[in-house]
Amino acid sequence: MSSSFGERFRFTIFGQSHGAAIGVTIEGLPAGQTIDLGRLQAFLARRAPGNSPTATQRKEADEIKILSGLVNGRTCGAPLTAVIENTNTRSGDYSDLRDCPRPGHADYTAQMKFGGFQDVAGGGHFSGRLTAPLCIAGGICLQLLEQRGVFIAAHIESIASVRDRRFDPVGVSREELLRLQSGGFPVLNADVEKEMTQAILNVKQEGDSLGGVIECAAVGLPAGWGDPMFGGIENRIAQIVFGIPAIRGIEFGTGFAAAEMRGSEHNDAFVMDGEKVRTGTNHHGGVLGGITSGMPLIFRATVKPTPSIARAQQSVSLSAGTAKTLEVRGRHDPCIVPRAVPVIEAAAACALYDAFLCS
Amino acid sequence: MSSSFGERFRFTIFGQSHGAAIGVTIEGLPAGQTIDLGRLQAFLARRAPGNSPTATQRKEADEIKILSGLVNGRTCGAPLTAVIENTNTRSGDYSDLRDCPRPGHADYTAQMKFGGFQDVAGGGHFSGRLTAPLCIAGGICLQLLEQRGVFIAAHIESIASVRDRRFDPVGVSREELLRLQSGGFPVLNADVEKEMTQAILNVKQEGDSLGGVIECAAVGLPAGWGDPMFGGIENRIAQIVFGIPAIRGIEFGTGFAAAEMRGSEHNDAFVMDGEKVRTGTNHHGGVLGGITSGMPLIFRATVKPTPSIARAQQSVSLSAGTAKTLEVRGRHDPCIVPRAVPVIEAAAACALYDAFLCS
Amino acid sequence: MSSSFGERFRFTIFGQSHGAAIGVTIEGLPAGQTIDLGRLQAFLARRAPGNSPTATQRKEADEIKILSGLVNGRTCGAPLTAVIENTNTRSGDYSDLRDCPRPGHADYTAQMKFGGFQDVAGGGHFSGRLTAPLCIAGGICLQLLEQRGVFIAAHIESIASVRDRRFDPVGVSREELLRLQSGGFPVLNADVEKEMTQAILNVKQEGDSLGGVIECAAVGLPAGWGDPMFGGIENRIAQIVFGIPAIRGIEFGTGFAAAEMRGSEHNDAFVMDGEKVRTGTNHHGGVLGGITSGMPLIFRATVKPTPSIARAQQSVSLSAGTAKTLEVRGRHDPCIVPRAVPVIEAAAACALYDAFLCS
Amino acid sequence: MSSSFGERFRFTIFGQSHGAAIGVTIEGLPAGQTIDLGRLQAFLARRAPGNSPTATQRKEADEIKILSGLVNGRTCGAPLTAVIENTNTRSGDYSDLRDCPRPGHADYTAQMKFGGFQDVAGGGHFSGRLTAPLCIAGGICLQLLEQRGVFIAAHIESIASVRDRRFDPVGVSREELLRLQSGGFPVLNADVEKEMTQAILNVKQEGDSLGGVIECAAVGLPAGWGDPMFGGIENRIAQIVFGIPAIRGIEFGTGFAAAEMRGSEHNDAFVMDGEKVRTGTNHHGGVLGGITSGMPLIFRATVKPTPSIARAQQSVSLSAGTAKTLEVRGRHDPCIVPRAVPVIEAAAACALYDAFLCS
Repeated sequence: MSSSFGERFRFTIFGQSHGAAIGVTIEGLPAGQTIDLGRLQAFLARRAPGNSPTATQRKEADEIKILSGLVNGRTCGAPLTAVIENTNTRSGDYSDLRDCPRPGHADYTAQMKFGGFQDVAGGGHFSGRLTAPLCIAGGICLQLLEQRGVFIAAHIESIASVRDRRFDPVGVSREELLRLQSGGFPVLNADVEKEMTQAILNVKQEGDSLGGVIECAAVGLPAGWGDPMFGGIENRIAQIVFGIPAIRGIEFGTGFAAAEMRGSEHNDAFVMDGEKVRTGTNHHGGVLGGITSGMPLIFRATVKPTPSIARAQQSVSLSAGTAKTLEVRGRHDPCIVPRAVPVIEAAAACALYDAFLCS
Repeated sequence: MSSSFGERFRFTIFGQSHGAAIGVTIEGLPAGQTIDLGRLQAFLARRAPGNSPTATQRKEADEIKILSGLVNGRTCGAPLTAVIENTNTRSGDYSDLRDCPRPGHADYTAQMKFGGFQDVAGGGHFSGRLTAPLCIAGGICLQLLEQRGVFIAAHIESIASVRDRRFDPVGVSREELLRLQSGGFPVLNADVEKEMTQAILNVKQEGDSLGGVIECAAVGLPAGWGDPMFGGIENRIAQIVFGIPAIRGIEFGTGFAAAEMRGSEHNDAFVMDGEKVRTGTNHHGGVLGGITSGMPLIFRATVKPTPSIARAQQSVSLSAGTAKTLEVRGRHDPCIVPRAVPVIEAAAACALYDAFLCS
Repeated sequence: MSSSFGERFRFTIFGQSHGAAIGVTIEGLPAGQTIDLGRLQAFLARRAPGNSPTATQRKEADEIKILSGLVNGRTCGAPLTAVIENTNTRSGDYSDLRDCPRPGHADYTAQMKFGGFQDVAGGGHFSGRLTAPLCIAGGICLQLLEQRGVFIAAHIESIASVRDRRFDPVGVSREELLRLQSGGFPVLNADVEKEMTQAILNVKQEGDSLGGVIECAAVGLPAGWGDPMFGGIENRIAQIVFGIPAIRGIEFGTGFAAAEMRGSEHNDAFVMDGEKVRTGTNHHGGVLGGITSGMPLIFRATVKPTPSIARAQQSVSLSAGTAKTLEVRGRHDPCIVPRAVPVIEAAAACALYDAFLCS
Repeated sequence: MSSSFGERFRFTIFGQSHGAAIGVTIEGLPAGQTIDLGRLQAFLARRAPGNSPTATQRKEADEIKILSGLVNGRTCGAPLTAVIENTNTRSGDYSDLRDCPRPGHADYTAQMKFGGFQDVAGGGHFSGRLTAPLCIAGGICLQLLEQRGVFIAAHIESIASVRDRRFDPVGVSREELLRLQSGGFPVLNADVEKEMTQAILNVKQEGDSLGGVIECAAVGLPAGWGDPMFGGIENRIAQIVFGIPAIRGIEFGTGFAAAEMRGSEHNDAFVMDGEKVRTGTNHHGGVLGGITSGMPLIFRATVKPTPSIARAQQSVSLSAGTAKTLEVRGRHDPCIVPRAVPVIEAAAACALYDAFLCS
């Protein structure tokens, strides 16, 4: 089931960009868990476009309405459904996309799969707007994981060629992650904010867009979460992270750089830290054989430049079978990397909480 | 279920490195499909260590025995179970790994997860040997996909810093893929074979190991396979590929390089090719919105250097809680990249065939 | 996942009796299917208490609101979520059930499972009210099956000792089923309506309740739907039907009576009917080896007497650990059999449509 | 996946009656569980035809061979695969069933589903022989449940019109169940053995067959296992029990008889039994709202008369489209009820153990 994720904590995301509402139905939440709706709403606010000049001009309150599953702020053992009404819809903007697919979007492939019955308005079910319900599911998991001492946060590692520093894979701390979660521009080195923002504004003016890389860390994980083979932490995280539009790659620990290391370099020696076993280095990124080692979990995901750009682009008329020049209207982000940061955290949280419930 | 993969074509891999047998149970094979067991055995031979000086000295015939699911060479609609007996086992080699975990292996994390009850001999269920049953499942899918005009093959993109050329993402051809499948050292530029082999032999002599990158392509895919969100082609392939030991990252199309491109560069213009819609470039790697576009599917996976190295390494005694120097015995590959090539093909085939059945 | 059903047509029911809303999220609806919301609403009306003196006094409009998945009356390939707002809630009625469980209800077992965090108001997620979203899922399937020539309807076989005649397992016709679907008291022999109604009114006056048996038939099924072993038509129908509160047994074809037949009697001879293969009798109830034979599908389900009765009953105080006399307040049906008829049809439709998609 | 069952304890049954081997692959067994293979083999012996004159003349040693998942008699956290080789096969007996389907068997429906590619020899994957691997999975669960104080056993409630007494739904004891498990003819009232056996022998002589009813009980279940709606104990048990060939109906607790009771009779009053909550009567059969109440679980399943009878029967030639008289050869049970008793226990054990793991 393609819009569903998870084995024990299992959710289905529903809705289309310009439909009545978007939302999520979650099964598998243990009964009696406290969920702070204020914090959940605040988490979603990190994803919202806000008033940032670097983001889309579509404004949505994204107010979470819980239909079921909570009684007096606690889970009751039944499925939880949360919805967000779509208020600021402009379906007229998108009417001719059924015939002339936007490059870099799912218009053409959806047309081929769904035979023209897909909802094209605003990208329909493929819209980045559907990451809001993912953030509801993930925001709940973040709270539940935090109650178990696990903290997750991400930062922008790069936008185009502007680079933040990376997490220290051994020393990344809960405090550092809490600071990232608390809002503001999500970078480790505050100095790069201005440069990144400027790069986005420049490209916006040119009617173009930028991509980047997001790095995510989780600390406080005990050793032993995750499963062998296809139930490994990497498998679970990769499966959900590629569900975020625009993600093109993911790597764990040292990642692609491991290809040029030797075993003697890449292997992380085990050492005693008092009574606790840890590794001296953390090239493995906190996962060995699909199972957490107790070291910080580190992964990176790459975000392609927003396909919606203001420039004229080459496409085709599917009905006529001829070339056609397309100008994408609508309201778009010149770079979605900043807004994707909490979405990556949400995805990681869902995967980890599910792995925990399966352990 | 961690050792299982797939939604409609669903299989479970069983066995441990030094147990009685390893194998796979497959559900969801449509009835009446012809499976050529000779070709399947030949496909597995590409994964076997053979007599290559660059591979492990453990020799296994890896003879496939079909227990069920086939009648006169055709699937009968019931589950197919295939087994490979383990003949060349040396369980004595591994007895003290329960106490002193090997760096870079799953020994420690398995111990934490399974409380000491895991099979440690040869890595047990975590062993790279378990990729043989994955190749059975995948080899079957390769045949079934080929019957539908879909061809998949992979090559070594790099070993350490020695690089093959990449696939032409637009022009990669069935013939090129068939040549890779036919055996021999899997590179596009034959000149790099010697250099790669030499690099492996050098590192072997030093008691060390190397990693690399594998690039995989599929051609002949129609547009419209795969699903939105978590059922996308990338999600499915990533979920299975991270089930192969030593994989640390995966990227589709332009992958991580997309992070430094602009939308106007990265977007692939749609063009008419006679009656057919295609894209002029293929930065998207054949998948948009999780759904195939009809262009070649291209992905890359990184393989870490083999963690089993001949050198003394730093570890701990879990029982004593003290540091301990470990020397890994047993028979190992100084670089598993060449043998991992058909495994990547098998994984991709399983994911694509399952996506096809779900379409 | 306990509130979910189905493999390819998969839905999750959410909501509690006195929460904000109840509803269903459905995945796996093929794109482009026409759904008539007026007919769907009319189908739900058959389940609603209406103004019948034999049903609960709780009145709910049960207006279906589609949040996603439909565009211009057709499925768009994305999940469909439908909700019904709870308007006529009286949560005050149920406040002490957490301590003093009602006999025959899930109060005690839910307390033991969910540790007191379950929603007790009106039975929470265990309420019979949750069959309304099941009727949404099933009502959609009924329409989609009808488009394929498959018709399903059920009737009251008995209430207490008052008996309707049974379907003719060979000759049951589409017309007969359409008549049952069209509303009115669902019996084959119209003469029994008065007697059944009177039996219910009598028991209501006595503060007691009645059970009964519902018989369901499907015609127009081709041979070949369903799967061996655990995916058989009986397995699927039984799994969903026991999800309806108060169901205590199910039987297919001749059912329990088969235990006293001989093979020579029970076996249904195959005969040619023109070009078509059928069976002369239909003791097998349309399913052999879990797979439809093309003969009418026939099953029966038993409904226990409503556990909510007006009489004082013996229970315990869980906190005090002492006996306690309980009087159940609230609004209840003295016999839910009539209202359960469309729910049985809905359940059968979901199971059959899912089996069709799996075929 | 039709030959698979379970959510957390999940297994797939493979094999055909006259193929190389039959077996089962199990995922989800917690690591470190002790499994006594001798007892498992003894459990299977209860299902084997043995030398009973009432059973088939096909003799199979049914020796269980464990391929994976066990190390020194304990589960190791990896999938467990067990196989039984088919030794006494006679594929020649069945060659013309592809054209002339046996009444009461799956020959015709399998033909329609699998287009003639199904394995027809001995019923292929539909054969009752496939209940042997189900008994392996269930025999393991019986041991694991017993380690938690849960005991399950079944008896023949009736064969044709010969009746054993029923379990006392309140007082059924562990000792009674252990006695049934220990072998011998599985009845509560030893006096009926002779009459039942004689009934079978009589019908055998007439070339005919008999059916019956099996009643199963589980004691020692804590309150709180099972889940609401479709994950209820009844749903799980029904789903697996209908996977046993010849089962036509199932009922829990008072079952179909509940239809003629009043609420005031059927409701089981809660009472204190020292510190423990129980019910005074047990019409609910140990399950309320899908969740165990702590009272004995009681269910009954009906077994149709064996469809393979020695008499000539009416069938058709599928190729010619004409009537044809069929004489079923091969070796068959004139009544499978006695051999089905441990299979029912196995099925119940799998469902309950899975429900436990999900709790």
